Amino acid sequence: MAQKMEKITPRDEDFAQWYTDVVKNANLVDYGPVKGTLIFKPYGYAIWENIMKIVDADFKKMGVTNVYFPLLIPASLFNKEKEHIEGFAPEVATVTKVGDKQLGEDLYIRPTSEVLIMNHFAKEIKSYRDLPLVYNQWANVMRWEKTTRPFLRSSEFLWQEGHTIHSDKKEAEELAIKIAKYYKDFVQDFLLCPVLSGKKTEREKFAGAKDTYTIEALMYDGQSLQSGTSHYFEDNFTKAFNIKFQNKEQKEEFAYTTSWGISTRLIGAIIMTHADDEGLVLPSKIAPIQVQIININDSDEVLKTSNDLKEKLSKTFRVNIDSSDKSFGFKISEAEIKGIPIRIEVGPRDLKDGVVTISRRDTKSKESIKLDDVIKYIENQIIDYDKNLFEKALQNRKNRTFSANTIYEYIKLLENKQGFVLVPFCCEIDCENNVKEKTQTVSRCISSDHKVDQNQKCFNCEASAKNMVYFARSY
Amino acid sequence: MAQKMEKITPRDEDFAQWYTDVVKNANLVDYGPVKGTLIFKPYGYAIWENIMKIVDADFKKMGVTNVYFPLLIPASLFNKEKEHIEGFAPEVATVTKVGDKQLGEDLYIRPTSEVLIMNHFAKEIKSYRDLPLVYNQWANVMRWEKTTRPFLRSSEFLWQEGHTIHSDKKEAEELAIKIAKYYKDFVQDFLLCPVLSGKKTEREKFAGAKDTYTIEALMYDGQSLQSGTSHYFEDNFTKAFNIKFQNKEQKEEFAYTTSWGISTRLIGAIIMTHADDEGLVLPSKIAPIQVQIININDSDEVLKTSNDLKEKLSKTFRVNIDSSDKSFGFKISEAEIKGIPIRIEVGPRDLKDGVVTISRRDTKSKESIKLDDVIKYIENQIIDYDKNLFEKALQNRKNRTFSANTIYEYIKLLENKQGFVLVPFCCEIDCENNVKEKTQTVSRCISSDHKVDQNQKCFNCEASAKNMVYFARSY
Repeated sequence: MAQKMEKITPRDEDFAQWYTDVVKNANLVDYGPVKGTLIFKPYGYAIWENIMKIVDADFKKMGVTNVYFPLLIPASLFNKEKEHIEGFAPEVATVTKVGDKQLGEDLYIRPTSEVLIMNHFAKEIKSYRDLPLVYNQWANVMRWEKTTRPFLRSSEFLWQEGHTIHSDKKEAEELAIKIAKYYKDFVQDFLLCPVLSGKKTEREKFAGAKDTYTIEALMYDGQSLQSGTSHYFEDNFTKAFNIKFQNKEQKEEFAYTTSWGISTRLIGAIIMTHADDEGLVLPSKIAPIQVQIININDSDEVLKTSNDLKEKLSKTFRVNIDSSDKSFGFKISEAEIKGIPIRIEVGPRDLKDGVVTISRRDTKSKESIKLDDVIKYIENQIIDYDKNLFEKALQNRKNRTFSANTIYEYIKLLENKQGFVLVPFCCEIDCENNVKEKTQTVSRCISSDHKVDQNQKCFNCEASAKNMVYFARSY
Repeated sequence: MAQKMEKITPRDEDFAQWYTDVVKNANLVDYGPVKGTLIFKPYGYAIWENIMKIVDADFKKMGVTNVYFPLLIPASLFNKEKEHIEGFAPEVATVTKVGDKQLGEDLYIRPTSEVLIMNHFAKEIKSYRDLPLVYNQWANVMRWEKTTRPFLRSSEFLWQEGHTIHSDKKEAEELAIKIAKYYKDFVQDFLLCPVLSGKKTEREKFAGAKDTYTIEALMYDGQSLQSGTSHYFEDNFTKAFNIKFQNKEQKEEFAYTTSWGISTRLIGAIIMTHADDEGLVLPSKIAPIQVQIININDSDEVLKTSNDLKEKLSKTFRVNIDSSDKSFGFKISEAEIKGIPIRIEVGPRDLKDGVVTISRRDTKSKESIKLDDVIKYIENQIIDYDKNLFEKALQNRKNRTFSANTIYEYIKLLENKQGFVLVPFCCEIDCENNVKEKTQTVSRCISSDHKVDQNQKCFNCEASAKNMVYFARSY
């Protein structure tokens, strides 16, 4: 392997460097030749494949149908929704020529596909009978970035973008909420990252949306990572694109739309939530390898045992035997760096007692397990492993959730600690702009669990508070 | 549905218009706002999803690992392999600015990813221990086209591109051949399109390749469609990119590479091989719906029977009940246009006799089948259905395979008939250029079954013939 084991900077010493070290040592990505682009190497891409597989199957159960829309959007079409274009204009990569020939019109590489899909919907929708359409695509998108951080910030990234259109306003809004709820469940149950969920403020909602629902995960360092968003557009886009349908009363009406997405950023969330100073720690459900078998020598007995184990375990788990010619110690380190949940060491001494040694990546526990008990043992350990990952992350979030009533308290918390800070907030754009100027932070989401008291004042401007809102530094 | 049933032009009257009509009526794609781009609608994309699912699973069994490389290639990097750039230069879409800002260097949207991947390999490969790397990506690529034909010709298309690097020359060459063989099996066994397979001539091989292996399917109209290619580069690319590894003797050596791909063109092949004047006819293994159930009325008995049937059949097949409020006749036409292999009609009169009516899309056979026998009957019919599709296509190819010994005979065949024409050929580039000038056709592949006789002359230049080669008009 070109990959060399290099020292991983301790997480508590320099979190950013630790992150870069983990990503590099675990062989997840490489940088592309164009600044801001990433190469997803096999192990990194396999995590994304596992995410896609689970989410795609769940979407299909929810009645979502997959489609594929073109990469390029004509500038004239993009400019149809003013608010939307303003949100993306500075970062759109623009095709101006083909070979030596200048094009008649600039073409944008999609930063997101709302306008393309609206344009298509306008042609497809005639009657309420044509509705709803519940589309999704797995695609690459591009938003230019000056700095690159694997999974967190790159000019090109991979995602799914759902786009739906409805005859019924309530149905559209409910779908946006249902998807946000699904994202929450998926990220918590499969990626084991606890999230806050709720609406975005006026300033932070998506360009053109009536409401944006977000899920926010708190990373180990106390910064928030927006992990999925679902937008309800009401008829904002359908008015801009003049998308009407004939309702049951034979009257023309504007339709209602939503869009929603999760991306390869989620891999960043997994790393910054669970990984440690020895490398990745992967949630079992998305780990490309769940059980790694390492042989202590090449004796027939050892090889036969590990092959048998692999065959038996493969019915339930993704199992791999490390049969490279690397040293035993290197193989152990590599299994740790790659965050493989369970490691089995098969050695001649153990086999005399009819046992193998099984370790867990999270707790570093090591136990001698009888060959006959291996499957049952691992089944139990994996359940406990996942539970432990979630609990640890939840504990970190609990330790890092604060509240403040004034901007001074808030700044003090930002200076001394990191985490979610719950504040009473007027939710006005100007006031949030002002908070951003003072603190370089903006709100993450409106709390759905906390209500403002009567007469409670905004933590920043002292106007009447409208909502309790979480603020935090964020990725 | 916005889709309206429109008349399908008879296939034998105007093949091109027939194709367009079938694609439109089956609701497979729409045109994007940028000329040459396509929107894959749910039914069209579902076919591609089924293709991906089968091929991806087979690749994984063959030890292929998925990756994802960036969309954009710097011009300077692309220009490293001269022959390669010449092949693609006139059709590369070029990003020159982001927002208002001009970029320092032109960036090409990948027409294929060899150079990007070579550039990455150069960094990854140190020793024979790092080899082989057997990568694949499912991605969008762009090659500008002036005319658009759904699936056959579009500026953006979807494909898989495999890229491998090896320490052993023979291993690399054998892998390229193995993949070509896999493509042949997949296209014949799953898409039911018989193919010729063999090497491309010097003129027709891929830019930069030592050998290109191709599979060529003959469409109903007698034109060939290149359905998959696998390239063996020897060390052409590794020399251009200076990719050396240390071999077992600790000496530096250039590595050997391959690349291979199939694309959404295959959907065009399926249509032009199997569809008929009533619409699509889909091979069962990639049909999004294999069994369509249509109720004759909404009585409890009918609904209960069709729900029961769906539940039972869903264990083996992809089953759908058309529960729209369209008329019975419209539902029948739609099932035909969509090419659904098996249709079950559930009606009260039949139910009195304990039967349902089952039709096959290919033969239009219609039989009353007892409820208890439905599963067994459909299982048998589907096997026969697939066999029939393949046999019909094979018969068409047999009827349209000719041979010629002179250019005059060849031109006459092209004028009067369409199909594969086997000719003795010198295989020189200049001679093939000359054939192209005279006939607007080039070779499809070198026959692996036929050898030239001693003293046999090239059909065009009368120099000594080197191989027996298939020529044909092509898509």
